[in-house]
Amino acid sequence: MKLRERVRTLVESRGFQGTIITIIIVNAILIGMQTYPSFETSPLLVAFDAVILGIFTVEILLRLYAYGWRFFTGAWNWFDFLIVVVSFIPSGGSLQVLRVLRVLRVLRLLSSVPSLRKVVNALIASIPGIASIGALLVIIMYVFIVACTMLFGPHSSDFRDLGASTVSLFRLLLGDGWGQLIDPVQEQLPWAWTFMMLYGVVSTFVVLNLFIAVTTQALQQQSQDDPEPSRVEQRILDELAMLRDKIGHSTSASGDGDARSSDEAAAVHDQ
Amino acid sequence: MKLRERVRTLVESRGFQGTIITIIIVNAILIGMQTYPSFETSPLLVAFDAVILGIFTVEILLRLYAYGWRFFTGAWNWFDFLIVVVSFIPSGGSLQVLRVLRVLRVLRLLSSVPSLRKVVNALIASIPGIASIGALLVIIMYVFIVACTMLFGPHSSDFRDLGASTVSLFRLLLGDGWGQLIDPVQEQLPWAWTFMMLYGVVSTFVVLNLFIAVTTQALQQQSQDDPEPSRVEQRILDELAMLRDKIGHSTSASGDGDARSSDEAAAVHDQ
Amino acid sequence: MKLRERVRTLVESRGFQGTIITIIIVNAILIGMQTYPSFETSPLLVAFDAVILGIFTVEILLRLYAYGWRFFTGAWNWFDFLIVVVSFIPSGGSLQVLRVLRVLRVLRLLSSVPSLRKVVNALIASIPGIASIGALLVIIMYVFIVACTMLFGPHSSDFRDLGASTVSLFRLLLGDGWGQLIDPVQEQLPWAWTFMMLYGVVSTFVVLNLFIAVTTQALQQQSQDDPEPSRVEQRILDELAMLRDKIGHSTSASGDGDARSSDEAAAVHDQ
Amino acid sequence: MKLRERVRTLVESRGFQGTIITIIIVNAILIGMQTYPSFETSPLLVAFDAVILGIFTVEILLRLYAYGWRFFTGAWNWFDFLIVVVSFIPSGGSLQVLRVLRVLRVLRLLSSVPSLRKVVNALIASIPGIASIGALLVIIMYVFIVACTMLFGPHSSDFRDLGASTVSLFRLLLGDGWGQLIDPVQEQLPWAWTFMMLYGVVSTFVVLNLFIAVTTQALQQQSQDDPEPSRVEQRILDELAMLRDKIGHSTSASGDGDARSSDEAAAVHDQ
Repeated sequence: MKLRERVRTLVESRGFQGTIITIIIVNAILIGMQTYPSFETSPLLVAFDAVILGIFTVEILLRLYAYGWRFFTGAWNWFDFLIVVVSFIPSGGSLQVLRVLRVLRVLRLLSSVPSLRKVVNALIASIPGIASIGALLVIIMYVFIVACTMLFGPHSSDFRDLGASTVSLFRLLLGDGWGQLIDPVQEQLPWAWTFMMLYGVVSTFVVLNLFIAVTTQALQQQSQDDPEPSRVEQRILDELAMLRDKIGHSTSASGDGDARSSDEAAAVHDQ
Repeated sequence: MKLRERVRTLVESRGFQGTIITIIIVNAILIGMQTYPSFETSPLLVAFDAVILGIFTVEILLRLYAYGWRFFTGAWNWFDFLIVVVSFIPSGGSLQVLRVLRVLRVLRLLSSVPSLRKVVNALIASIPGIASIGALLVIIMYVFIVACTMLFGPHSSDFRDLGASTVSLFRLLLGDGWGQLIDPVQEQLPWAWTFMMLYGVVSTFVVLNLFIAVTTQALQQQSQDDPEPSRVEQRILDELAMLRDKIGHSTSASGDGDARSSDEAAAVHDQ
Repeated sequence: MKLRERVRTLVESRGFQGTIITIIIVNAILIGMQTYPSFETSPLLVAFDAVILGIFTVEILLRLYAYGWRFFTGAWNWFDFLIVVVSFIPSGGSLQVLRVLRVLRVLRLLSSVPSLRKVVNALIASIPGIASIGALLVIIMYVFIVACTMLFGPHSSDFRDLGASTVSLFRLLLGDGWGQLIDPVQEQLPWAWTFMMLYGVVSTFVVLNLFIAVTTQALQQQSQDDPEPSRVEQRILDELAMLRDKIGHSTSASGDGDARSSDEAAAVHDQ
Repeated sequence: MKLRERVRTLVESRGFQGTIITIIIVNAILIGMQTYPSFETSPLLVAFDAVILGIFTVEILLRLYAYGWRFFTGAWNWFDFLIVVVSFIPSGGSLQVLRVLRVLRVLRLLSSVPSLRKVVNALIASIPGIASIGALLVIIMYVFIVACTMLFGPHSSDFRDLGASTVSLFRLLLGDGWGQLIDPVQEQLPWAWTFMMLYGVVSTFVVLNLFIAVTTQALQQQSQDDPEPSRVEQRILDELAMLRDKIGHSTSASGDGDARSSDEAAAVHDQ
């Protein structure tokens, strides 16, 4: 067995992957601890951090060697690769804020634990199905953002420019701050509440339909993938099996044709 | 080919429609920019705006010429027509507020992009199915609006008249400001919270059922339109095909009748 | 035709019921107008109110006469009867608050408009199916209400007794006032947030399941009542019809048996 | 009949269980009353409490005797056992807070009322199905909690450490306090709202999918357990029955085989 193949067997082994998952969880805890000032510059934690980054780097290099250029054909491989690369960005001095990128390493759990990877894949796969209705929500919000900026901008700093209006309408969409944001405008524009209730009803209606689109898709997917017949469907299948049985009896003279059909039936049952 | 037909071919061409969509998006960005004071009276943007309005006017006139009176039989054509007409309403001086109507042009995306048009049509089609339960919600809210105005009006300005009560009950429906609105009333009417919790439970129950009505309708629609059999249904169809095959063998003497049935089967599959 | 039967024909006529619905709507508008001080004691509105109450009384008496004692076997009849009776409760002086009962007359729309009556019946019919999970929600809330009163009562007036705690936990359930209610307690009991997050997760989980129970019930009901086959089901039915056709050809010698089966088939289609 | 069997018959009797449920409800009311200072040390209530605890203790001992060691094989038995054991923990002096544990006795309703026990079992059974997506939510929240602590910690006490950030992000997830929590940070970090809107969209999307996963599971479960065919399925079953009937006529010569099939059909119907 060539070296490359042995490396591939290693990185695909259950033990290797379990070790990596354990290290990611330990790393997650250490990163959490370092948010406390007393631990932030603890030499022990800094050393641990360097060791873990070393292990991650070696793991990526091993996988790069094992798969060669095919490594970059998998989206999850890119994901792991970029998270490690990002860790080497220097973060001292004025770039202190970049240290926060280390927390992204926790996300490696999503690519390493098979059941989580499956869930994330399913979530991403559901996005195209809701793209149209999502675009509709964006267009409607844009119209209200521009309209609110033009109408309410001179009267309230919450709608002073497109950015502030976006934040305010996002808050309203989440059901927060209706009184706080609209009451000041209402004092000068008595029709402000009427206009915003239109926004409330329209945006709720569209968001509701976004929910339904996702649910519908998920249920439809499920029912098509579901190999398990329900009780009623089982009754129908049983009746059909009985019918075939009966017809087989009445036509048993045409032996070989019958045998072929039975094979087909078996094939169907094995699916 | 007559001129009218050549115009119709033009306005229905993929290139023409793509150009219009691009112009609508550019217009949307320009309208957004003009909310910033430094751009508001920029001669360049004003000029651009006039050019784009010109293009939209020409497009509508072309479509009017191409389709004649039939143009007004399509709801989406009316939509496009009115949005352009509205742009010619003068908006200077005290009518400054009418300038906001220009932002409606962004909504032309809904009529121009086929997938968005489909989503909007579906949303509008779902309204009749929820009309009864929507009417129920309106009646219940009206009863509570009048009751709150009569009971709480003398004690809190949030319920001083029908308009204020509508706004307050709308806020409560969205889950905002329960403490802020009810606590002042509670001080004078100790049973106020009991009454409003009744409103909370009843309105939540009705809104919940509104959600379910919409979901149920959407799922039912989907399952009826769905041409793709699930795995279990495929098994049933396969069993049936096999049965037909067997019966065909046992009755192959009655040839022409069989042939007719096969044609029928083909017709069913083509549906 | 006896007088009683003629009265019954009258109260069941489309015209009579339409008139009553119109009067209810007019009454609703008048009741709304009377919330404004300038209209409250307007002699015209007071007179109108008396006339409408008179019409409602006459209508109930006619229906009582038409149906006799059977009138009280219908829940909706009781509903209409009580709303009219309640209107005769004197409401002057210190009983001013009873005037609000007049707004209940608007609810007569629910019993008079057939589609609304159907929706309300469906909503009430869905209650037994969610009774168990509703009881679970009540028990869990009761435990938290008592626990919060005992634990937080001495530290915050929002939890000073069972009533106040009920209001506070109801607000939290609706997603309002988390910071406002818990932060003051947190200052003295540092674990308060941990405890309330348990409440948040548990109550959300139960409410979520309440939603699902209702949706599931509604969808199941719908799919059982639905007489319209989906496309795939239509294909299955078509295949079966074809099979019957073929078997009919191959067994056409046994004529009378076949005829009987066709009758059965017709019966099934008529269901 | 041995004593042990007679005790088992007693504790499983309808009357015994009804009595226990009544005592639990009485106890729940008494515990509620004791939250009011005037009742807290009432000798009567304290005596009642002791009596009820005595009854519960005797009941558990009876069940322990009746079932022997098998008592501890049921999770609900452990539940009842621990709730009674916990009541004997001394709660005077500085352990005053432990008196709140008595309220857990109300939860015995969940194990004693069969329909509630069924609902709770169903809720617990739905947890494994949402474990993956729940874990995803936890991971995403952890990343945002650490990131917010690192980024916003120095600027706002709402994000001063992991605990405070957890509370704040939990509040935001429930749609409460967006303005209150983010606006102070926004003043110093102008991009704070952009970052938090990312949190809002991602967490809403994951929570939405959590809802859908639960709904999908519940509906799938329901449709598989449902023994009642819908109208369309009934038509398919009727057509199949008719086909069997016809084939039976055409093949009635092969008597015994037919009889066997009919038995099978009966068996299917009895399922």
